[in-house]
Amino acid sequence: MPKVIGFKTTDVRFPTSRGLDGSDAMNQDPDYSAAYLELLTDDPKLSGYGLVFTIGRGNDLQCSAIELLAPYAVGKEVSELAKSMGEFAKSLVRDSQMRWLGPEKGVTHMAAGAVINAVWDLVCKVSGKPLWKYLADLSPQEIVDLVDFRYISDAITPAQALEILTKAQANRAKNETSLLANGLPAYTTTPGWLGYTDEKMVHLAKQAVADGFKLIKLKCGVSLEDDKRRLKLVRQAVGAEIKLAIDANQVWDVNQAIEWLNSLGDVNLHWIEEPTNPDDVVGHAAIAKAIAPVKVATGEHVANRIIFKQMMQSKSFSFVQIDASRVAGINENIAIILMAAKFDLPVCPHAGGVGLCEMVQHLAMFDYVAVGGENPDRVVEFVDHLHEHFVVPTDIRNARYIPPVKAGAGAEMFAASVSDYKYPDGPQWRGQIK
Amino acid sequence: MPKVIGFKTTDVRFPTSRGLDGSDAMNQDPDYSAAYLELLTDDPKLSGYGLVFTIGRGNDLQCSAIELLAPYAVGKEVSELAKSMGEFAKSLVRDSQMRWLGPEKGVTHMAAGAVINAVWDLVCKVSGKPLWKYLADLSPQEIVDLVDFRYISDAITPAQALEILTKAQANRAKNETSLLANGLPAYTTTPGWLGYTDEKMVHLAKQAVADGFKLIKLKCGVSLEDDKRRLKLVRQAVGAEIKLAIDANQVWDVNQAIEWLNSLGDVNLHWIEEPTNPDDVVGHAAIAKAIAPVKVATGEHVANRIIFKQMMQSKSFSFVQIDASRVAGINENIAIILMAAKFDLPVCPHAGGVGLCEMVQHLAMFDYVAVGGENPDRVVEFVDHLHEHFVVPTDIRNARYIPPVKAGAGAEMFAASVSDYKYPDGPQWRGQIK
Repeated sequence: MPKVIGFKTTDVRFPTSRGLDGSDAMNQDPDYSAAYLELLTDDPKLSGYGLVFTIGRGNDLQCSAIELLAPYAVGKEVSELAKSMGEFAKSLVRDSQMRWLGPEKGVTHMAAGAVINAVWDLVCKVSGKPLWKYLADLSPQEIVDLVDFRYISDAITPAQALEILTKAQANRAKNETSLLANGLPAYTTTPGWLGYTDEKMVHLAKQAVADGFKLIKLKCGVSLEDDKRRLKLVRQAVGAEIKLAIDANQVWDVNQAIEWLNSLGDVNLHWIEEPTNPDDVVGHAAIAKAIAPVKVATGEHVANRIIFKQMMQSKSFSFVQIDASRVAGINENIAIILMAAKFDLPVCPHAGGVGLCEMVQHLAMFDYVAVGGENPDRVVEFVDHLHEHFVVPTDIRNARYIPPVKAGAGAEMFAASVSDYKYPDGPQWRGQIK
Repeated sequence: MPKVIGFKTTDVRFPTSRGLDGSDAMNQDPDYSAAYLELLTDDPKLSGYGLVFTIGRGNDLQCSAIELLAPYAVGKEVSELAKSMGEFAKSLVRDSQMRWLGPEKGVTHMAAGAVINAVWDLVCKVSGKPLWKYLADLSPQEIVDLVDFRYISDAITPAQALEILTKAQANRAKNETSLLANGLPAYTTTPGWLGYTDEKMVHLAKQAVADGFKLIKLKCGVSLEDDKRRLKLVRQAVGAEIKLAIDANQVWDVNQAIEWLNSLGDVNLHWIEEPTNPDDVVGHAAIAKAIAPVKVATGEHVANRIIFKQMMQSKSFSFVQIDASRVAGINENIAIILMAAKFDLPVCPHAGGVGLCEMVQHLAMFDYVAVGGENPDRVVEFVDHLHEHFVVPTDIRNARYIPPVKAGAGAEMFAASVSDYKYPDGPQWRGQIK
């Protein structure tokens, strides 16, 4: 009967700005970081881990926010928590004084997500299952009970969610067999960072095709001429069969996005990602309409299920890019996955950063096995970066995510990585390790 | 030539939950608080003040967020800042690493607002003018230059804003004379807190009418029967001529809001405020359509100009309730005021809390003198609470806000109040002063 007895946060930062990995039109010099939470139990061998991905400054603030919400887990038995994860998640999100600071957005909301995910990590470890399998083994009603339907009942009711899950149940065994045999398709953003030279980009794009990727994404949005040239170079390098997507990371206004995209010429884009501000439901809908048949993708910065709901209601996007650490954890992501099924939209998770691949793959696999089933458009982002710090790193084979089998929810890092990259006093930041 | 040389934040909390002042359907036990910023200059008699209003827990986190952004002001001369407030505000909002934590929402965005407003306080003090007068004396182009049009250019361009301001310029002198003579109409929420007994509510409502208020607002949304009874009691107490508004503080889902409001019967409501989640542009539009002719008001929790823009584009509301400390300061509120003028909607500021009346009155007065001009629907919220802690408290006469004449932007508190209510170690919290 393990019990949560305390917690510890660490400000972990990787000095990625030194090599311009992760550079895009909005974020020129990110230091990929994690506000990292360890929930301690009375079993010294058992801890639960969660994190919020940030890009540097403010990671300490994010740790402080987590420390304000982690006490909700302390003193509770993991077995109790396992039975009431829906209520537990709600209790954090609905703390009325903390809610004022969002509501349900920004630092406090992401903090709730880290705490909720760390508890899930404990629940999975105690059960002996990886998160995707734990969730996929729950009954439809148990899954519905995880979701806070507040503010989304005009788009999906508990009864409708139950119906979707019950209908999908017939295919669970088949889907799980297929998942274990084949994994899920990944796409790669590794070649396309804006800070890279054309040569490096072309080289990495060819490498990606050789590695089996069918979809490659490039950053864009600083210079129209650069975008045209880069797209042309990559298209020449990879051939006509490979899908190309671009990602503007929110740099455009609505009309500017439309003009820019309609000036790119016929480059057969699979999607444009984050053309404008993530709060702009109406703007994304206007863009989607104006640039068809090119499709819009967004979600990594969409703050909560309420904005996702409206994007679905308004046909603002065609690809639902959930992120593992932006919303209030696994529970809110399940709400979004269920809405996507209701609106018949593919969930194509955002990943990269620190641990986002490791965490979000579980949600994509759960979606595949128990909610959305087969969908040719489901693809999970992959960036080949920083995985070596994770206890259960992603396992990509032939450009597919192979399901993890170890118990947990994915956020656990090696203790040595956490202490080496602790900011500002870990050895990597003191300069003692090169 | 005063120069900013440092800053100090204080976690100030008032134990309002003890008397249930400020209690509503969402926030049952708020401790009205301020994350309070003092910008220090090399003139020991000159400081600039800004604050974020919160309701208790997390106020320390809000102070930490302010400390991450206040350094942007340090080392700058006030005269330089005065010439480039538009650029200064942008520099905070666009810090790419901090932006990741929102973007433009939550704790980090409100922190930007506190810093920006504290700089405005300095600029006004050095100029010798209250903020409303300082802004109303700027040229149309100078006002346009204060605004970040990023993400709102599909609703208002700089040229359109300039046209609105230039057109309004002819009435500035007349409006200012009228403002100085008559002030601006206030409405009151003092009688309507949910924690109050019927007797207290009726007594305070009658008092409000005797004090000259023409619009009274009641909290609602916990019990339909209570809402019906309370509205009936207040209507009986105040007569048919007084306008009544209700405020649900986001407790309803969209369809629930529509059903509830359509079940209240014909009580001649002036507005329903915050019927659902403040991010729900589409939901507010659905509610507005379904409950007409009752009108929707919202804004105190609307995170930024992008959500406000969409609410205007989508006819989600009829009253634009800007808040002094929710968005990125005076600059972003000017953007919202200009959009409201473009969409021909009245700006009816949210106030109350800690210092919100003192700060937001300047924006309403600027709107009246230099932007929106005469508008019978413009009314500013007033809650008679905590004003005694402010160096320039609101001056309400015959239910109207009388314009402040002292220089500044309104957030400065008495040093004794700040130290008495400092949390957790000020004497009010240690129990030494009761």
